[in-house]
Amino acid sequence: MSAYDYDLFVIGGGSGGVRAARVAAALGKKVGIAEEYRFGGTCVIRGCVPKKLFVYASQFPEHFEDAAGYGWTVPQASFDWPTLIANKDREIARLEGLYRKNVQGAGGETLQTRATLIDRHTIRLEAENRTVTADQILIATGGRPTEHRALPGHEHCITSNEAFHLAELPKAIAIGGGGYIAVEFANIFHGLGVETTLIYRGAEILSRFDMDLRRALHETMEAKGIRILTHAVSEGVERRPDGRLDVRVTGGEVLTVDQFMLAIGRQPNTENLGLEAAGVKTAKNGAIVVDRYSRTNVDNIWAVGDVTDRVQLTPVAIHEAMCFVETAFKNNPTAPDHETIATAVFSQPEIGTVGLSEDEAAKRFAELEIYRASFRPMRHTLSGRQEKMLMKLVVDAASRKVLGAHILGPDAGEMAQLLGIPIKAGLTKDDFDRTMAVHPTAAEELVTMYKPTYRVKDCVRLD
Amino acid sequence: MSAYDYDLFVIGGGSGGVRAARVAAALGKKVGIAEEYRFGGTCVIRGCVPKKLFVYASQFPEHFEDAAGYGWTVPQASFDWPTLIANKDREIARLEGLYRKNVQGAGGETLQTRATLIDRHTIRLEAENRTVTADQILIATGGRPTEHRALPGHEHCITSNEAFHLAELPKAIAIGGGGYIAVEFANIFHGLGVETTLIYRGAEILSRFDMDLRRALHETMEAKGIRILTHAVSEGVERRPDGRLDVRVTGGEVLTVDQFMLAIGRQPNTENLGLEAAGVKTAKNGAIVVDRYSRTNVDNIWAVGDVTDRVQLTPVAIHEAMCFVETAFKNNPTAPDHETIATAVFSQPEIGTVGLSEDEAAKRFAELEIYRASFRPMRHTLSGRQEKMLMKLVVDAASRKVLGAHILGPDAGEMAQLLGIPIKAGLTKDDFDRTMAVHPTAAEELVTMYKPTYRVKDCVRLD
Repeated sequence: MSAYDYDLFVIGGGSGGVRAARVAAALGKKVGIAEEYRFGGTCVIRGCVPKKLFVYASQFPEHFEDAAGYGWTVPQASFDWPTLIANKDREIARLEGLYRKNVQGAGGETLQTRATLIDRHTIRLEAENRTVTADQILIATGGRPTEHRALPGHEHCITSNEAFHLAELPKAIAIGGGGYIAVEFANIFHGLGVETTLIYRGAEILSRFDMDLRRALHETMEAKGIRILTHAVSEGVERRPDGRLDVRVTGGEVLTVDQFMLAIGRQPNTENLGLEAAGVKTAKNGAIVVDRYSRTNVDNIWAVGDVTDRVQLTPVAIHEAMCFVETAFKNNPTAPDHETIATAVFSQPEIGTVGLSEDEAAKRFAELEIYRASFRPMRHTLSGRQEKMLMKLVVDAASRKVLGAHILGPDAGEMAQLLGIPIKAGLTKDDFDRTMAVHPTAAEELVTMYKPTYRVKDCVRLD
Repeated sequence: MSAYDYDLFVIGGGSGGVRAARVAAALGKKVGIAEEYRFGGTCVIRGCVPKKLFVYASQFPEHFEDAAGYGWTVPQASFDWPTLIANKDREIARLEGLYRKNVQGAGGETLQTRATLIDRHTIRLEAENRTVTADQILIATGGRPTEHRALPGHEHCITSNEAFHLAELPKAIAIGGGGYIAVEFANIFHGLGVETTLIYRGAEILSRFDMDLRRALHETMEAKGIRILTHAVSEGVERRPDGRLDVRVTGGEVLTVDQFMLAIGRQPNTENLGLEAAGVKTAKNGAIVVDRYSRTNVDNIWAVGDVTDRVQLTPVAIHEAMCFVETAFKNNPTAPDHETIATAVFSQPEIGTVGLSEDEAAKRFAELEIYRASFRPMRHTLSGRQEKMLMKLVVDAASRKVLGAHILGPDAGEMAQLLGIPIKAGLTKDDFDRTMAVHPTAAEELVTMYKPTYRVKDCVRLD
């Protein structure tokens, strides 16, 4: 018998914490998991899931428009924001219940309380005003949108957290940031009929993605009617007498909007957690420092997910949690693999990407072959919509290995998921070429690009 | 200089013929290509392309319905069949022009005429009432829907050819057949509001596909309101005084419909082609017999595509054409590769499949692991639609190789295309498992099925 109340105590009921709790409990370990807000974490409660539901909602107007070319006459549709919020909340509540039940079903104990560390084996359950002890402790408290306290009027701003629960749909919104969250919400609000302006400090949205995708998405968003200001930041926000906001941006222009949403980054939730009392080290940005097995400097305390600021993605947190259980409870030290992670941006059109961007690959490989196709998706031949789909493969000329695949267009996320398999496995362009096309699909372009569009040698593009 | 008018003469301007003509012409060969009807062939003119446009058209009513759960109120939309036909025809004409132009752009000559063989080097151009000679001849005349002359009243029936040009949308239709064409059209007509009955001789639709897909699609189609009669054939068709048709089916029931479409197979276009004069052998079903390089028994005459009845798919015809050019004109004998061809059925929901079905794999491998997931696509959590998505991997237990992947649900065709790459390359379930999920997508299920749903040993399912 363990000398502790729990074999494992998990602080934080998001994707990583819940997975670790569930799997460890299923191994017969005595497991407790504490969550101060709602089980499900960022992904389920105010991230991936409600975001994607909003994306679906915001795509309907384009479906209605596209129908005309196919012979349909659709009278003007109307949208009710509170209905969307209510239906979304019902689904989120259902998922939250499932998360909780899954832990309990595996034999774990769920606790609805903030939990903090007293020492390396003792946890204080704030809501219950008591302490418990645990042999192993996992911190999975996630992150939150970065605040911007230096911005005059920052108290008038919202973040993605609030965007999921606005009492009414704004008529006009400004969004500060150029990362995927900013871009996704810009498309959501625009799709729902909101006058939308994106304000981004950098030269081009979505830094670190392949430049072709960044430019093409930027152009498409502008063509839809989203205003994008680059090289620009908000310098001050003021509440007007009519309740709206004046957002002053670089250069002096003032945008009058109903909401100003900041999406300028995310920060780890490590404040007032008792990390100092337990002796757990954090990095400058507050993230918990872990080794390759997700172990902190205190050898019975571990951390996974966004709180460690490695790769902030749900499947990565889950993978880290699975590896943690292998390492801590199955005598099978397993380091999470953070190489070649496919991702999607649920912009409109969507981005799906895996592996190296052209620029990144050019730095690491002497010669590249770039295969690129830009075409109108078949659906849009009759809809008349002018959006183009972009597909790009980055290939190492020497080994023929496909280093990266980058897609902008419908279902790009689904495609990136499945391109992740051959690219992670190191397959070559010849393996792609040997694959028979499926017609008519969009993805068939990826296996029928027989000649390089251009080459890149020593970082220089050859035409 | 060649002693012939042409280095290559191609009979038939479909996907295979056009590709061969274009590529050979681009090599500097003197190429002629004759088409009696319209360049583009079955795929462009009355197959894949217009079919998929019809699929898009028929999906809008579900989009309109699904919108309600997302907060949209959509007044009753109306549909105009002639608008769809006109817009489809405009797009098809555009594509036809491109096909023709591509051949001409490469230096080939396009001829609008039926062409028949006089002898192994001489072709008669019927519309021009003259003959030409060619060193090499490629027959790529494709196929057509099988007629059913034994059926009393068969003259009242249509096939997919006519379905693309009906003067008006029927109120009720019966479709004979259970293959992919029958199934796709059943979904198209039903989606457009037509009362639809499928009449199929066999026990289950879509023979040769994985049985789970067949059953699940069958159930979903019935749940939508499509009537499916299995173990049934039409025994007679009569024109009623009101112009409608009475279709008598097995068991005596009479279906009164506006159209009866037969989709009971396709047959090669080899009649009156002069094959006997040239000495070219055909099989019992009329297909041209070719060796593995697509060469007929006459060594300067070749055939590719549906007319050879190998695998009747556009990309296969194109692939065979490319291999033919390598073999005949580049001194690089290349046999087309017909192994592991991914395909899609644009039913609603869609099917995407690659590799072996469970039943087929069980015959060839001692022990299988079957991974299967059935879930509601995220879009339908709010739409309320009860359709489930099905995903299935068939894995050889001994080698861990993924033998087959089978998907029913949105975007299954796109997924099958990309699953074709790892499955063709022989990757294992471990390669799938090593791939990080992209969340939230449907395809992530395919890389997160960690435990077999069941095993199959010596053709027996073990639970």
